[in-house]
Amino acid sequence: MSDGLFLAFEGGDGAGKSTQVRLLADVVAAGGREVVVTRQPGGTVLGQQLRQLVLYGEAMAPRAEALIFAADKAQHVEEVIRPALARGAVVITDRYTDSAVAYQGAGRELGSDEVHDLQMWAVCGLVPDLTVIIDLPPEEGRRRRGDVHDRLESEADAYHAAVREHFLAIAAAAPERYLVIDGTQPPQALHAQIVGRLAAAGVVPGGAG
Amino acid sequence: MSDGLFLAFEGGDGAGKSTQVRLLADVVAAGGREVVVTRQPGGTVLGQQLRQLVLYGEAMAPRAEALIFAADKAQHVEEVIRPALARGAVVITDRYTDSAVAYQGAGRELGSDEVHDLQMWAVCGLVPDLTVIIDLPPEEGRRRRGDVHDRLESEADAYHAAVREHFLAIAAAAPERYLVIDGTQPPQALHAQIVGRLAAAGVVPGGAG
Repeated sequence: MSDGLFLAFEGGDGAGKSTQVRLLADVVAAGGREVVVTRQPGGTVLGQQLRQLVLYGEAMAPRAEALIFAADKAQHVEEVIRPALARGAVVITDRYTDSAVAYQGAGRELGSDEVHDLQMWAVCGLVPDLTVIIDLPPEEGRRRRGDVHDRLESEADAYHAAVREHFLAIAAAAPERYLVIDGTQPPQALHAQIVGRLAAAGVVPGGAG
Repeated sequence: MSDGLFLAFEGGDGAGKSTQVRLLADVVAAGGREVVVTRQPGGTVLGQQLRQLVLYGEAMAPRAEALIFAADKAQHVEEVIRPALARGAVVITDRYTDSAVAYQGAGRELGSDEVHDLQMWAVCGLVPDLTVIIDLPPEEGRRRRGDVHDRLESEADAYHAAVREHFLAIAAAAPERYLVIDGTQPPQALHAQIVGRLAAAGVVPGGAG
Protein backbone atom coordinates (compact mmCIF):
# COMPACT_ATOMS: atom_id res chain seq x y z
CA MET A 1 0.00 0.00 0.00
CA SER A 2 2.97 2.34 0.53
CA ASP A 3 6.61 2.52 1.52
CA GLY A 4 5.66 2.38 5.19
CA LEU A 5 6.80 -0.45 7.41
CA PHE A 6 4.64 -2.06 10.06
CA LEU A 7 6.26 -3.69 13.10
CA ALA A 8 4.55 -5.30 16.10
CA PHE A 9 5.82 -6.44 19.48
CA GLU A 10 4.10 -9.30 21.26
CA GLY A 11 4.65 -11.30 24.43
CA GLY A 12 3.41 -11.66 27.99
CA ASP A 13 3.13 -8.80 30.46
CA GLY A 14 6.52 -7.95 31.92
CA ALA A 15 8.47 -9.26 28.93
CA GLY A 16 10.00 -5.85 28.24
CA LYS A 17 8.05 -4.91 25.12
CA SER A 18 7.78 -1.21 25.88
CA THR A 19 11.53 -0.90 26.49
CA GLN A 20 12.32 -2.59 23.20
CA VAL A 21 9.75 -0.48 21.34
CA ARG A 22 11.44 2.66 22.66
CA LEU A 23 14.97 1.51 21.86
CA LEU A 24 14.00 0.52 18.34
CA ALA A 25 12.07 3.74 17.72
CA ASP A 26 15.18 5.74 18.65
CA VAL A 27 17.34 3.83 16.19
CA VAL A 28 14.86 4.16 13.34
CA ALA A 29 14.37 7.88 14.01
CA ALA A 30 18.14 8.37 14.10
CA GLY A 31 18.19 6.96 10.59
CA GLY A 32 15.94 9.80 9.47
CA ARG A 33 12.60 8.03 9.06
CA GLU A 34 9.32 9.04 10.65
CA VAL A 35 8.42 6.65 13.47
CA VAL A 36 4.92 6.23 14.90
CA VAL A 37 4.84 4.37 18.22
CA THR A 38 1.48 3.11 19.39
CA ARG A 39 -0.10 0.34 21.39
CA GLN A 40 -3.12 -1.90 21.65
CA PRO A 41 -5.48 -1.90 23.31
CA GLY A 42 -5.83 1.79 23.92
CA GLY A 43 -4.02 3.46 20.99
CA THR A 44 -6.92 5.86 20.29
CA VAL A 45 -9.34 7.85 22.45
CA LEU A 46 -12.03 5.29 21.74
CA GLY A 47 -9.54 2.52 22.41
CA GLN A 48 -8.67 3.96 25.82
CA GLN A 49 -12.34 3.95 26.78
CA LEU A 50 -12.75 0.38 25.56
CA ARG A 51 -9.58 -0.69 27.36
CA GLN A 52 -10.92 0.61 30.65
CA LEU A 53 -14.13 -1.37 30.14
CA VAL A 54 -12.23 -4.60 29.54
CA LEU A 55 -9.41 -4.34 32.08
CA TYR A 56 -11.26 -2.86 35.01
CA GLY A 57 -14.92 -3.49 34.28
CA GLU A 58 -17.42 -6.07 35.45
CA ALA A 59 -17.24 -9.71 34.47
CA MET A 60 -17.89 -9.88 30.77
CA ALA A 61 -19.16 -12.46 28.31
CA PRO A 62 -16.17 -13.93 26.41
CA ARG A 63 -17.63 -12.96 23.03
CA ALA A 64 -18.30 -9.41 24.23
CA GLU A 65 -14.69 -9.11 25.36
CA ALA A 66 -13.41 -10.44 22.04
CA LEU A 67 -15.61 -8.02 20.09
CA ILE A 68 -14.49 -5.04 22.19
CA PHE A 69 -10.82 -5.85 21.61
CA ALA A 70 -11.60 -6.17 17.90
CA ALA A 71 -13.35 -2.78 17.91
CA ASP A 72 -10.27 -1.21 19.46
CA LYS A 73 -8.21 -2.76 16.70
CA ALA A 74 -10.50 -1.53 13.93
CA GLN A 75 -10.38 2.05 15.18
CA HIS A 76 -6.64 1.92 15.71
CA VAL A 77 -5.89 0.68 12.21
CA GLU A 78 -8.16 3.20 10.50
CA GLU A 79 -7.26 6.21 12.63
CA VAL A 80 -3.55 5.68 13.31
CA ILE A 81 -1.82 2.85 11.48
CA ARG A 82 -3.05 3.09 7.88
CA PRO A 83 -2.58 6.87 7.63
CA ALA A 84 0.96 6.56 9.01
CA LEU A 85 1.87 3.75 6.62
CA ALA A 86 0.41 5.77 3.75
CA ARG A 87 2.82 8.60 4.66
CA GLY A 88 5.71 6.13 4.52
CA ALA A 89 6.30 6.01 8.28
CA VAL A 90 7.63 3.10 10.31
CA VAL A 91 4.80 2.09 12.64
CA ILE A 92 5.73 0.20 15.81
CA THR A 93 2.86 -1.15 17.87
CA ASP A 94 3.03 -2.61 21.37
CA ARG A 95 0.67 -5.58 20.84
CA TYR A 96 -1.51 -6.30 17.81
CA THR A 97 -3.81 -9.08 16.61
CA ASP A 98 -1.67 -11.97 17.87
CA SER A 99 -2.22 -10.88 21.47
CA ALA A 100 -5.94 -11.03 20.96
CA VAL A 101 -5.73 -14.50 19.46
CA ALA A 102 -3.36 -15.76 22.15
CA TYR A 103 -5.12 -14.29 25.18
CA GLN A 104 -8.72 -14.84 24.15
CA GLY A 105 -8.45 -17.73 21.74
CA ALA A 106 -5.98 -20.05 23.43
CA GLY A 107 -6.57 -19.08 27.02
CA ARG A 108 -10.34 -18.76 27.17
CA GLU A 109 -13.57 -20.28 25.96
CA LEU A 110 -13.36 -19.14 22.35
CA GLY A 111 -11.60 -20.94 19.55
CA SER A 112 -8.43 -19.26 18.34
CA ASP A 113 -9.54 -19.59 14.71
CA GLU A 114 -12.72 -17.66 15.44
CA VAL A 115 -10.85 -14.92 17.26
CA HIS A 116 -8.31 -14.76 14.44
CA ASP A 117 -11.05 -14.36 11.83
CA LEU A 118 -12.71 -11.65 13.92
CA GLN A 119 -9.44 -9.77 14.31
CA MET A 120 -8.64 -10.01 10.61
CA TRP A 121 -12.07 -8.62 9.75
CA ALA A 122 -11.51 -5.75 12.18
CA VAL A 123 -8.17 -4.76 10.61
CA CYS A 124 -9.19 -5.47 7.00
CA GLY A 125 -6.44 -8.08 6.79
CA LEU A 126 -3.54 -5.76 7.63
CA VAL A 127 -0.66 -7.86 8.99
CA PRO A 128 2.73 -6.54 10.22
CA ASP A 129 5.81 -6.83 8.04
CA LEU A 130 7.54 -8.22 11.11
CA THR A 131 6.31 -9.23 14.55
CA VAL A 132 8.83 -9.55 17.40
CA ILE A 133 7.77 -11.99 20.11
CA ILE A 134 9.62 -11.51 23.38
CA ASP A 135 9.33 -14.90 24.99
CA LEU A 136 9.33 -15.20 28.77
CA PRO A 137 8.36 -17.99 31.20
CA PRO A 138 5.09 -16.99 32.95
CA GLU A 139 6.62 -17.16 36.43
CA GLU A 140 9.36 -14.72 35.40
CA GLY A 141 6.74 -12.37 33.97
CA ARG A 142 4.79 -12.46 37.21
CA ARG A 143 7.94 -11.77 39.24
CA ARG A 144 8.73 -8.74 37.07
CA ARG A 145 5.23 -7.32 37.29
CA GLY A 146 5.46 -7.16 41.07
CA ASP A 147 2.30 -6.08 42.82
CA VAL A 148 0.53 -4.40 39.93
CA HIS A 149 -2.63 -6.29 39.05
CA ASP A 150 -5.63 -5.88 36.84
CA ARG A 151 -8.22 -8.48 35.93
CA LEU A 152 -6.23 -10.09 33.12
CA GLU A 153 -2.93 -10.08 35.03
CA SER A 154 -4.39 -11.92 38.00
CA GLU A 155 -5.29 -15.00 35.98
CA ALA A 156 -3.49 -18.17 36.89
CA ASP A 157 -0.04 -19.03 35.62
CA ALA A 158 -1.55 -21.90 33.65
CA TYR A 159 -3.42 -19.38 31.57
CA HIS A 160 -0.24 -17.39 30.89
CA ALA A 161 1.52 -20.61 29.97
CA ALA A 162 -1.20 -21.36 27.40
CA VAL A 163 -0.88 -17.84 26.04
CA ARG A 164 2.86 -18.26 25.68
CA GLU A 165 2.50 -21.54 23.81
CA HIS A 166 0.07 -19.88 21.46
CA PHE A 167 2.48 -17.05 20.64
CA LEU A 168 5.17 -19.59 19.85
CA ALA A 169 2.83 -21.61 17.64
CA ILE A 170 1.79 -18.52 15.68
CA ALA A 171 5.43 -17.62 15.07
CA ALA A 172 6.36 -21.16 14.05
CA ALA A 173 3.62 -21.15 11.42
CA ALA A 174 5.06 -18.12 9.59
CA PRO A 175 8.76 -17.72 10.48
CA GLU A 176 9.36 -15.21 7.67
CA ARG A 177 7.11 -12.71 9.47
CA TYR A 178 8.23 -13.41 13.04
CA LEU A 179 11.28 -13.02 15.26
CA VAL A 180 11.15 -14.89 18.57
CA ILE A 181 13.71 -13.77 21.15
CA ASP A 182 14.51 -14.95 24.67
CA GLY A 183 13.19 -12.28 27.04
CA THR A 184 15.36 -13.39 29.96
CA GLN A 185 18.35 -11.69 28.30
CA PRO A 186 19.39 -8.10 29.13
CA PRO A 187 17.55 -5.36 27.20
CA GLN A 188 20.55 -4.41 25.07
CA ALA A 189 21.05 -8.02 23.99
CA LEU A 190 17.40 -8.21 22.90
CA HIS A 191 17.75 -4.90 21.09
CA ALA A 192 20.78 -6.10 19.16
CA GLN A 193 18.90 -9.15 17.88
CA ILE A 194 15.96 -7.02 16.75
CA VAL A 195 18.23 -4.54 14.98
CA GLY A 196 20.12 -7.38 13.35
CA ARG A 197 16.94 -8.79 11.84
CA LEU A 198 15.73 -5.38 10.66
CA ALA A 199 19.10 -4.37 9.23
CA ALA A 200 18.66 -7.08 6.64
CA ALA A 201 15.47 -5.31 5.56
CA GLY A 202 17.23 -1.96 5.31
CA VAL A 203 15.12 -0.38 8.05
CA VAL A 204 18.03 0.44 10.31
CA PRO A 205 21.76 0.74 9.60
CA GLY A 206 23.50 -2.63 9.82
CA GLY A 207 25.17 -3.30 13.16
CA ALA A 208 23.57 -0.30 14.89
CA GLY A 209 22.47 -0.45 18.52
CA MET B 1 -33.46 -24.77 24.59
CA SER B 2 -36.47 -24.26 26.89
CA ASP B 3 -40.14 -23.30 27.00
CA GLY B 4 -39.24 -19.63 26.83
CA LEU B 5 -40.36 -17.45 23.95
CA PHE B 6 -38.21 -14.80 22.36
CA LEU B 7 -39.85 -11.79 20.69
CA ALA B 8 -38.16 -8.79 19.06
CA PHE B 9 -39.47 -5.43 17.87
CA GLU B 10 -37.73 -3.66 15.03
CA GLY B 11 -38.29 -0.52 12.99
CA GLY B 12 -37.11 3.06 12.61
CA ASP B 13 -36.90 5.56 15.45
CA GLY B 14 -40.32 6.98 16.25
CA ALA B 15 -42.21 3.95 14.93
CA GLY B 16 -43.77 3.26 18.33
CA LYS B 17 -41.80 0.17 19.31
CA SER B 18 -41.58 0.98 23.01
CA THR B 19 -45.35 1.53 23.25
CA GLN B 20 -46.04 -1.79 21.59
CA VAL B 21 -43.51 -3.58 23.75
CA ARG B 22 -45.26 -2.24 26.86
CA LEU B 23 -48.75 -3.11 25.66
CA LEU B 24 -47.71 -6.63 24.72
CA ALA B 25 -45.83 -7.18 27.98
CA ASP B 26 -48.98 -6.27 29.93
CA VAL B 27 -51.07 -8.78 28.01
CA VAL B 28 -48.56 -11.59 28.41
CA ALA B 29 -48.13 -10.88 32.12
CA ALA B 30 -51.92 -10.83 32.56
CA GLY B 31 -51.90 -14.35 31.20
CA GLY B 32 -49.65 -15.42 34.07
CA ARG B 33 -46.28 -15.80 32.33
CA GLU B 34 -43.04 -14.16 33.37
CA VAL B 35 -42.16 -11.34 30.98
CA VAL B 36 -38.68 -9.88 30.60
CA VAL B 37 -38.61 -6.58 28.71
CA THR B 38 -35.24 -5.38 27.48
CA ARG B 39 -33.64 -3.38 24.71
CA GLN B 40 -30.60 -3.10 22.51
CA PRO B 41 -28.25 -1.41 22.52
CA GLY B 42 -27.95 -0.76 26.22
CA GLY B 43 -29.74 -3.69 27.89
CA THR B 44 -26.88 -4.35 30.34
CA VAL B 45 -24.52 -2.15 32.35
CA LEU B 46 -21.78 -2.85 29.82
CA GLY B 47 -24.25 -2.22 27.01
CA GLN B 48 -25.16 1.18 28.41
CA GLN B 49 -21.51 2.16 28.46
CA LEU B 50 -21.03 0.94 24.90
CA ARG B 51 -24.22 2.69 23.78
CA GLN B 52 -22.92 6.01 25.05
CA LEU B 53 -19.70 5.52 23.12
CA VAL B 54 -21.55 4.86 19.87
CA LEU B 55 -24.40 7.36 20.07
CA TYR B 56 -22.61 10.34 21.53
CA GLY B 57 -18.93 9.63 20.97
CA GLU B 58 -16.43 10.83 18.42
CA ALA B 59 -16.55 9.81 14.77
CA MET B 60 -15.84 6.13 14.66
CA ALA B 61 -14.49 3.66 12.10
CA PRO B 62 -17.45 1.73 10.60
CA ARG B 63 -15.98 -1.62 11.62
CA ALA B 64 -15.36 -0.40 15.16
CA GLU B 65 -18.98 0.70 15.41
CA ALA B 66 -20.21 -2.65 14.10
CA LEU B 67 -18.02 -4.54 16.57
CA ILE B 68 -19.20 -2.45 19.51
CA PHE B 69 -22.84 -3.07 18.66
CA ALA B 70 -22.02 -6.77 18.38
CA ALA B 71 -20.30 -6.71 21.80
CA ASP B 72 -23.43 -5.19 23.32
CA LYS B 73 -25.44 -7.99 21.76
CA ALA B 74 -23.13 -10.73 23.04
CA GLN B 75 -23.32 -9.45 26.60
CA HIS B 76 -27.06 -8.96 26.41
CA VAL B 77 -27.74 -12.48 25.19
CA GLU B 78 -25.49 -14.15 27.76
CA GLU B 79 -26.44 -11.99 30.74
CA VAL B 80 -30.17 -11.38 30.16
CA ILE B 81 -31.84 -13.24 27.32
CA ARG B 82 -30.57 -16.83 27.61
CA PRO B 83 -31.07 -17.06 31.39
CA ALA B 84 -34.62 -15.70 31.02
CA LEU B 85 -35.47 -18.14 28.22
CA ALA B 86 -34.01 -20.98 30.28
CA ARG B 87 -36.45 -20.05 33.08
CA GLY B 88 -39.31 -20.26 30.59
CA ALA B 89 -39.94 -16.50 30.41
CA VAL B 90 -41.27 -14.52 27.48
CA VAL B 91 -38.46 -12.16 26.48
CA ILE B 92 -39.42 -9.03 24.55
CA THR B 93 -36.55 -6.95 23.22
CA ASP B 94 -36.74 -3.47 21.72
CA ARG B 95 -34.34 -4.00 18.78
CA TYR B 96 -32.10 -7.00 18.12
CA THR B 97 -29.76 -8.19 15.37
CA ASP B 98 -31.87 -6.98 12.45
CA SER B 99 -31.40 -3.37 13.54
CA ALA B 100 -27.65 -3.84 13.43
CA VAL B 101 -27.80 -5.37 9.96
CA ALA B 102 -30.20 -2.72 8.65
CA TYR B 103 -28.49 0.35 10.11
CA GLN B 104 -24.87 -0.63 9.63
CA GLY B 105 -25.07 -3.06 6.75
CA ALA B 106 -27.53 -1.43 4.40
CA GLY B 107 -27.02 2.18 5.32
CA ARG B 108 -23.25 2.38 5.71
CA GLU B 109 -19.98 1.22 4.24
CA LEU B 110 -20.14 -2.38 5.40
CA GLY B 111 -21.83 -5.23 3.60
CA SER B 112 -25.01 -6.48 5.25
CA ASP B 113 -23.84 -10.10 4.95
CA GLU B 114 -20.70 -9.30 6.93
CA VAL B 115 -22.64 -7.49 9.62
CA HIS B 116 -25.15 -10.34 9.77
CA ASP B 117 -22.37 -12.91 10.24
CA LEU B 118 -20.79 -10.78 12.95
CA GLN B 119 -24.09 -10.42 14.78
CA MET B 120 -24.82 -14.14 14.56
CA TRP B 121 -21.41 -14.94 16.01
CA ALA B 122 -22.04 -12.50 18.85
CA VAL B 123 -25.38 -14.09 19.80
CA CYS B 124 -24.30 -17.69 19.14
CA GLY B 125 -27.00 -17.97 16.50
CA LEU B 126 -29.94 -17.16 18.78
CA VAL B 127 -32.83 -15.84 16.62
CA PRO B 128 -36.24 -14.64 17.90
CA ASP B 129 -39.29 -16.88 17.59
CA LEU B 130 -41.06 -13.85 16.14
CA THR B 131 -39.85 -10.40 15.12
CA VAL B 132 -42.40 -7.60 14.73
CA ILE B 133 -41.34 -4.90 12.29
CA ILE B 134 -43.25 -1.64 12.72
CA ASP B 135 -42.94 -0.07 9.31
CA LEU B 136 -43.00 3.70 8.97
CA PRO B 137 -42.00 6.12 6.19
CA PRO B 138 -38.78 7.92 7.21
CA GLU B 139 -40.36 11.38 6.99
CA GLU B 140 -43.12 10.32 9.39
CA GLY B 141 -40.53 8.95 11.80
CA ARG B 142 -38.61 12.23 11.70
CA ARG B 143 -41.80 14.21 12.35
CA ARG B 144 -42.60 12.06 15.37
CA ARG B 145 -39.13 12.35 16.83
CA GLY B 146 -39.45 16.12 16.98
CA ASP B 147 -36.33 17.95 18.06
CA VAL B 148 -34.54 15.11 19.82
CA HIS B 149 -31.32 14.26 18.00
CA ASP B 150 -28.29 12.10 18.46
CA ARG B 151 -25.66 11.20 15.91
CA LEU B 152 -27.60 8.35 14.31
CA GLU B 153 -30.92 10.21 14.27
CA SER B 154 -29.50 13.18 12.44
CA GLU B 155 -28.55 11.15 9.38
CA ALA B 156 -30.29 12.02 6.13
CA ASP B 157 -33.70 10.68 5.21
CA ALA B 158 -32.12 8.71 2.37
CA TYR B 159 -30.23 6.68 4.95
CA HIS B 160 -33.42 5.97 6.89
CA ALA B 161 -35.14 4.98 3.65
CA ALA B 162 -32.36 2.46 2.97
CA VAL B 163 -32.70 1.11 6.49
CA ARG B 164 -36.45 0.69 6.02
CA GLU B 165 -35.99 -1.20 2.76
CA HIS B 166 -33.55 -3.50 4.47
CA PHE B 167 -35.98 -4.32 7.29
CA LEU B 168 -38.63 -5.18 4.71
CA ALA B 169 -36.24 -7.38 2.75
CA ILE B 170 -35.21 -9.29 5.87
CA ALA B 171 -38.85 -9.95 6.73
CA ALA B 172 -39.72 -11.00 3.20
CA ALA B 173 -36.94 -13.61 3.25
CA ALA B 174 -38.38 -15.42 6.30
CA PRO B 175 -42.11 -14.58 6.63
CA GLU B 176 -42.70 -17.38 9.16
CA ARG B 177 -40.53 -15.53 11.68
CA TYR B 178 -41.69 -11.98 10.93
CA LEU B 179 -44.78 -9.81 11.25
CA VAL B 180 -44.65 -6.52 9.37
CA ILE B 181 -47.28 -3.96 10.41
CA ASP B 182 -48.11 -0.46 9.18
CA GLY B 183 -46.87 1.95 11.85
CA THR B 184 -49.07 4.82 10.70
CA GLN B 185 -52.06 3.13 12.35
CA PRO B 186 -53.18 3.98 15.92
CA PRO B 187 -51.32 2.11 18.70
CA GLN B 188 -54.32 -0.07 19.64
CA ALA B 189 -54.73 -1.19 16.03
CA LEU B 190 -51.07 -2.21 15.91
CA HIS B 191 -51.42 -3.99 19.23
CA ALA B 192 -54.43 -5.98 18.02
CA GLN B 193 -52.48 -7.25 15.00
CA ILE B 194 -49.56 -8.32 17.18
CA VAL B 195 -51.83 -10.11 19.65
CA GLY B 196 -53.65 -11.79 16.80
CA ARG B 197 -50.45 -13.26 15.45
CA LEU B 198 -49.26 -14.39 18.88
CA ALA B 199 -52.61 -15.86 19.86
CA ALA B 200 -52.12 -18.47 17.17
CA ALA B 201 -48.93 -19.49 19.01
CA GLY B 202 -50.74 -19.72 22.34
CA VAL B 203 -48.67 -16.96 23.90
CA VAL B 204 -51.63 -14.71 24.68
CA PRO B 205 -55.35 -15.46 24.94
CA GLY B 206 -57.06 -15.23 21.53
CA GLY B 207 -58.77 -11.91 20.87
CA ALA B 208 -57.22 -10.13 23.85
CA GLY B 209 -56.14 -6.54 23.62
